[in-house]
Amino acid sequence: MTDRPRFAFRIDATDGAARTGLVSMRRGDIRTPAFMPVGTAATVKAMKPADVRASGADIILGNTYHLMLRPGAERVERLGGLHAFMGWERPVLTDSGGYQVMSLSELARVTEEGVTFRSHLDGSKHLLSPERSVEVQRLLGSDIVMAFDQLVPTTSTRDVQAAAMERSMRWAKRSRDAFDGGGAHAEAAAIFGIQQGALDEALRRASADQLREIGFDGYAVGGLAVGEGQAEMFRVLNFAAPMLPDERPRYLMGVGKPDDIVGAVARGIDMFDCVLPTRSGRTGQAFTRDGPINIRNARFAEEEEPLEAGCPCPVCGSWSRAYLHHLVRAGEILGAMLMTEHNLFFYQRLMADLRAAIAEGRLKAFADDFRERYRGGAA
Amino acid sequence: MTDRPRFAFRIDATDGAARTGLVSMRRGDIRTPAFMPVGTAATVKAMKPADVRASGADIILGNTYHLMLRPGAERVERLGGLHAFMGWERPVLTDSGGYQVMSLSELARVTEEGVTFRSHLDGSKHLLSPERSVEVQRLLGSDIVMAFDQLVPTTSTRDVQAAAMERSMRWAKRSRDAFDGGGAHAEAAAIFGIQQGALDEALRRASADQLREIGFDGYAVGGLAVGEGQAEMFRVLNFAAPMLPDERPRYLMGVGKPDDIVGAVARGIDMFDCVLPTRSGRTGQAFTRDGPINIRNARFAEEEEPLEAGCPCPVCGSWSRAYLHHLVRAGEILGAMLMTEHNLFFYQRLMADLRAAIAEGRLKAFADDFRERYRGGAA
Repeated sequence: MTDRPRFAFRIDATDGAARTGLVSMRRGDIRTPAFMPVGTAATVKAMKPADVRASGADIILGNTYHLMLRPGAERVERLGGLHAFMGWERPVLTDSGGYQVMSLSELARVTEEGVTFRSHLDGSKHLLSPERSVEVQRLLGSDIVMAFDQLVPTTSTRDVQAAAMERSMRWAKRSRDAFDGGGAHAEAAAIFGIQQGALDEALRRASADQLREIGFDGYAVGGLAVGEGQAEMFRVLNFAAPMLPDERPRYLMGVGKPDDIVGAVARGIDMFDCVLPTRSGRTGQAFTRDGPINIRNARFAEEEEPLEAGCPCPVCGSWSRAYLHHLVRAGEILGAMLMTEHNLFFYQRLMADLRAAIAEGRLKAFADDFRERYRGGAA
Repeated sequence: MTDRPRFAFRIDATDGAARTGLVSMRRGDIRTPAFMPVGTAATVKAMKPADVRASGADIILGNTYHLMLRPGAERVERLGGLHAFMGWERPVLTDSGGYQVMSLSELARVTEEGVTFRSHLDGSKHLLSPERSVEVQRLLGSDIVMAFDQLVPTTSTRDVQAAAMERSMRWAKRSRDAFDGGGAHAEAAAIFGIQQGALDEALRRASADQLREIGFDGYAVGGLAVGEGQAEMFRVLNFAAPMLPDERPRYLMGVGKPDDIVGAVARGIDMFDCVLPTRSGRTGQAFTRDGPINIRNARFAEEEEPLEAGCPCPVCGSWSRAYLHHLVRAGEILGAMLMTEHNLFFYQRLMADLRAAIAEGRLKAFADDFRERYRGGAA
């Protein structure tokens, strides 16, 4: 695969602000708009890699924060890198750890150097800085490295938001420099910058300008999907997404619900990640075109239909809602496995449908139909 | 498959007391000696049915006690039976519930009629009798029905053991009659009797004689592997197994560890079931030819070798001990999945090796080699 490009993005069709195309990298192609299943601890929870691939995933996400604490980045590197370790040969995007270090760790302390914190696992003390974050991502063998940024609560004042954004831009430059100094890894991988600025148009503009000045392979929209609600997220995307270069992939981090994704694609987003299909699968929620259902509900106890009528996934081809109801109620691992598998297929089928709709210039009709059916049927 | 026999047992080769052959039933053939993975709650825990089959399993076991309480035998019947419900098309043997009702339920009360008890799930009151046990097994669609018997603690006096055995023989006759009255089910399924009598040769003889008088498709050895130790179990098998008809399959219930199985096969046993490969898989124990290993042990943290060198299973083909160590330590579902899969392949490979050794008249050499290596390497 060494004759493949390090990183190339081709747009095959547009429909309004939406685009469909292909990211090409050494370890494989990524069809966009793309959904990346989350593989936090070197595993997409309850799924074998071959089944993740069979669902249609071209790329998965790994969490720097979790992996640096367990099993440890240096250990993963000694074991041949994340791909060999977990048995996933295609591209992996790693986050920078900036989000988790603030939300999961204990006693995080932020300075211009970086963030010192204590592990939520064993209380051990660690530092994450732009340089260390990029080093960890390199040790993991990441294909798409994310710049290290500073997250602040959404309830912060505009001054605090502005200061965190400005610091994140200084850290973005340090991340870029650390990545470029990475030798062979920099020749084979890519790095994305992350736009911050909360819900403020001027801050988002300033952040985008500074990121473009540094220059990245792709650009993420950070700091959304943190509780602001869909309408507010779409309002921000309306101005924030176009600030990022047209010719580069745009990645909306941590999004989201199926109808969030549909709306964000219509606003020019190319890549997504979210724990929702996997986490929901473990708690009994299944996604369907008619809205999510909670399979624990007593009304499913004797339903012989599959989770979703007409779904081509292996789960819907073999098992009834009644069986899944039983498994989930009984706390069986197979319940988590099958629910997760269906949900990942659902998400990937949605992405394939979105790509086809854009290619055929009928995204608005598809989105309207999807939303109406999805929201009308929500249980 | 309706031109297939209801139940036929063919012995292809013998080696000492050991035999290898084939049980043929409507839903498929069972190569003997056979190991039946346990699918307690309509699932072999953490495994898809196709992967259970791929490991080499010809038949699985379902638990009457668990299934009658959740999701309920009548419900399973309305949903098309256990095979359709769980997506396993090959033979299923169901136990009678006699063991679990004494070990798991609350306030069990035994009379000549049967056992009344309260569910360990919700405290609801139930009756299990020979007639109800066979009815539940019929509602589930069981291929091999087990007679309902009475278990007493191994610490009971000989009088108590004798009385329980005699009652179990009366219940065996009632089970046989209930089975024969089952209409179409009796035309397509089989029923096994269960020898009781604890560790006492005279009681075992009396039990075997009464079972032969009633007549069953196969005969189980019950009441062993309940804490008496391997040497004592083998001592009892030496006299108990030959009491059961040569021309019928002999099933040693709830056994066992790999070297238990090797020794029992040498003593004429044809069928086994045990939760050990699946339960161990969920707690971090992996079986290897060099003895079991606990993958949580720190020495595996950076071992790039598979669980067992040379093992042809899908897990050993793709993942290292280091990765499984990480998954199990992190409490990841995939850890339980992969450890279980390897263990089931290990057990089925052992059974295939035993069948080949018997067919080639070299069982003693195989058993000696296996035991020496297995015990020598135990970690």
